[in-house]
Amino acid sequence: MQSNFKGKHFISLQDWAKDEIDTLLEVSMEMKRNFAMGVPTPHLLYKTIFLMFFEQSTRTRNSMEAGIAQLGGHGTFLDTSTTQIAHGEVAKDTAVILSRYGHGIACRNCGWGVGNSYIREIEKWSTVPVMNLQCDLYHPMQGIADLMTMREKTGDLRGTRVSIIWAYATSHKKPISVPLTQVLLFPRYGLDVTLAYPEGYDLPVWAVEQAGANAGLHGGKVKITHNMEEAYRDAQFVIPKNWGSWVTDQSDEVNDELLESNKGWKCTEEMIKLADKDVMYMHALPADRNNEVDDSVIDGPRSIVYDEAENRLHTAKAVMTLTMGGK
Amino acid sequence: MQSNFKGKHFISLQDWAKDEIDTLLEVSMEMKRNFAMGVPTPHLLYKTIFLMFFEQSTRTRNSMEAGIAQLGGHGTFLDTSTTQIAHGEVAKDTAVILSRYGHGIACRNCGWGVGNSYIREIEKWSTVPVMNLQCDLYHPMQGIADLMTMREKTGDLRGTRVSIIWAYATSHKKPISVPLTQVLLFPRYGLDVTLAYPEGYDLPVWAVEQAGANAGLHGGKVKITHNMEEAYRDAQFVIPKNWGSWVTDQSDEVNDELLESNKGWKCTEEMIKLADKDVMYMHALPADRNNEVDDSVIDGPRSIVYDEAENRLHTAKAVMTLTMGGK
Amino acid sequence: MQSNFKGKHFISLQDWAKDEIDTLLEVSMEMKRNFAMGVPTPHLLYKTIFLMFFEQSTRTRNSMEAGIAQLGGHGTFLDTSTTQIAHGEVAKDTAVILSRYGHGIACRNCGWGVGNSYIREIEKWSTVPVMNLQCDLYHPMQGIADLMTMREKTGDLRGTRVSIIWAYATSHKKPISVPLTQVLLFPRYGLDVTLAYPEGYDLPVWAVEQAGANAGLHGGKVKITHNMEEAYRDAQFVIPKNWGSWVTDQSDEVNDELLESNKGWKCTEEMIKLADKDVMYMHALPADRNNEVDDSVIDGPRSIVYDEAENRLHTAKAVMTLTMGGK
Repeated sequence: MQSNFKGKHFISLQDWAKDEIDTLLEVSMEMKRNFAMGVPTPHLLYKTIFLMFFEQSTRTRNSMEAGIAQLGGHGTFLDTSTTQIAHGEVAKDTAVILSRYGHGIACRNCGWGVGNSYIREIEKWSTVPVMNLQCDLYHPMQGIADLMTMREKTGDLRGTRVSIIWAYATSHKKPISVPLTQVLLFPRYGLDVTLAYPEGYDLPVWAVEQAGANAGLHGGKVKITHNMEEAYRDAQFVIPKNWGSWVTDQSDEVNDELLESNKGWKCTEEMIKLADKDVMYMHALPADRNNEVDDSVIDGPRSIVYDEAENRLHTAKAVMTLTMGGK
Repeated sequence: MQSNFKGKHFISLQDWAKDEIDTLLEVSMEMKRNFAMGVPTPHLLYKTIFLMFFEQSTRTRNSMEAGIAQLGGHGTFLDTSTTQIAHGEVAKDTAVILSRYGHGIACRNCGWGVGNSYIREIEKWSTVPVMNLQCDLYHPMQGIADLMTMREKTGDLRGTRVSIIWAYATSHKKPISVPLTQVLLFPRYGLDVTLAYPEGYDLPVWAVEQAGANAGLHGGKVKITHNMEEAYRDAQFVIPKNWGSWVTDQSDEVNDELLESNKGWKCTEEMIKLADKDVMYMHALPADRNNEVDDSVIDGPRSIVYDEAENRLHTAKAVMTLTMGGK
Repeated sequence: MQSNFKGKHFISLQDWAKDEIDTLLEVSMEMKRNFAMGVPTPHLLYKTIFLMFFEQSTRTRNSMEAGIAQLGGHGTFLDTSTTQIAHGEVAKDTAVILSRYGHGIACRNCGWGVGNSYIREIEKWSTVPVMNLQCDLYHPMQGIADLMTMREKTGDLRGTRVSIIWAYATSHKKPISVPLTQVLLFPRYGLDVTLAYPEGYDLPVWAVEQAGANAGLHGGKVKITHNMEEAYRDAQFVIPKNWGSWVTDQSDEVNDELLESNKGWKCTEEMIKLADKDVMYMHALPADRNNEVDDSVIDGPRSIVYDEAENRLHTAKAVMTLTMGGK
């Protein structure tokens, strides 16, 4: 077991070795047990983290802000409307000064072609651990919570069939960071991953190649299909979720024609019936109800979305404790 | 004395038995004494509560956020501009997930015909105590602070004459939740309540009936009048405050004609002279100065508005400690 | 040494005796050493302070909010968009009620002709210490951090040559509070102060007179010049920073003609070469890069802006601990 996490950044799980992720999962489970028992965990007593949000958030903010408070510390919520951040203040200044003032920096910045660069610039100048709360490419906090949830439900993940499936939504052009993180991470735990989407919604080539390499190294599989039914068939976990066509069209516009021609990509009762009889439905939330998924599925017996959402708290506390506390 | 408060919701004081409210008042007094002496009260150490606000607030937010911090815990301030709450996220999702992340949920939502339903929906799905920070119908945090203040000033409340009086204001169409809460609560403590307002500003029939029933059970009295002077005459406490004509006109519009014809409903020195010589003037604040009340009254010797406001802190801490802590 | 700070307001350093400021600097250094060593400093355990901001802020907010958390307490961030403060609530009500709810009140209000009056009105009614986080006239948190930084760099400050120099900027009409605070404070520590600005950017006459009186009492010097090069020549510290022409023109408008005719007032490499070979460049941040200062200067070897910024944390913690804690 790896024990030297202090100061480690958490930008992409790809930067974390598998035994480091193993430890992170173990600590997350321990956090969860202690929370369930009401055992205090003041591991970061009087320590402070800055939570910078360039976009709105419910789960991510609350899991971090409640999480650090339950660890005995404090998170300062900084949105771009009430600070000088993102109004001309250069990332270097922000990174150096927040490093001097506290013990960690966490940031959500999903701007396409901007978010990850911003966080990497913060990482470059920070002297405290930097945590990615979702950027245009990665959402490691969601990825680790998803992995934890699947392990809780099935035990050994090797050979488990999971399908990451594009779904129709109208709300806004969503980042590719959730499916990209999942397709990179799951093969490292030996999962049999199917990535399904309509043509035009490809993930970046480098990511698919890296996913394949991860599968080769760790015994998982990665398959791509444009056939939705194939993706549902016999799956043990399905994760239907919208993402935008950023790779070919980098505008903020939802690409209406392409999008509207794929209205059929919806998680319905019929699709669920194609899957394994014990299939579990997952979603990072908030779901675009009645577009991405029928209410009867997300509110039904196969849905584990609330267990998945809860694990955001325990994994966030584990990440903070390992990187900001530690020996 | 009732000692099993853990997990109890605090939506309307009508849901709390009288001996439960007695305990709440005792705990509030104890909180106040400890605060005055500087004795720490870390009863909710490392515990977290979510504070959701659909409307702006000063006293309510600060009493809750400072209160939980003084109890050793943390309140996350969630306003609707910086979260996904109230932007398509269903109440069930909010309730279940916030329940999983922390130890309490508090909410202000004053939308007419919407607020109480929203909080009851949160209550339905929450597994942690839900606290009403004001809705379209109830403001129990204000009600209990008012009761505490009156008891501090007079000792035994039985037979004490209190007048809840409508007042003219131009700022916005205010909820009926403050007078409605008071008229339900005060008769349970044996108070002799006069409710005075111009025709057209009736409270809902069910509330007036319930107030009468409460009076019958507990020895109080409830009288309604449309004569302002009658309400001031010989009163020991006066609570002149504006509310909107929601019952007949459910639009957000201030009903100008009706409102303007009642400009004379103002708490002036002359009105105060009609009252008991030791009368005390109360207001939940912020007051619409020079419309609801003359400066010389609210800033004068009969005003106890700051003592009333302060008790919001101690009662909030008592509610949180009893419902979120406990055995 | 003075030990009776409890309840003392921190509006202007001019209100603090020199031995009080000495103690403040000593406590700031102790805070910094403990922070560096990871020694906990829960001096304000479970205590609360309200942080009212009428303008955006990064350093000030974060140094206060992280600072109070590191002291074991909690700061409630109140901006004017999410509270009733500044929307008709009178300062007296705010001051009395926040005093009743917590242990300190801090406020930034830079409105010209308004800010200091507002904070003095808060001070008048508050029963807890009031801290000025920058007003139209003073920025004592910045002043004390600057003094601490210079002392760390040079040891004994007596006779040290510091130049406070106006600089061109386009961002907005900036307050005079930083240079005004510096020109009042530095002579009290025996510094040899040069204040340089183009004609039309005078500080108020009373402030210059007070600065001279401070120099006379404590052995410092104050000289005014309108020659930029003279101010840089042989200086050991230079603090080039923009401020608006508030004294003659009290509108919010940047006075374009006067401003544009002074574009040459910029801190360049050439100017730095005129100064002492070990000169140090300071700025309160955020700098208006390429207008106030060349990147090569602010990012270069003579710049100590991050050390200066960091000291905002330690001095803020010292001010809070002395005034809110104490015997």
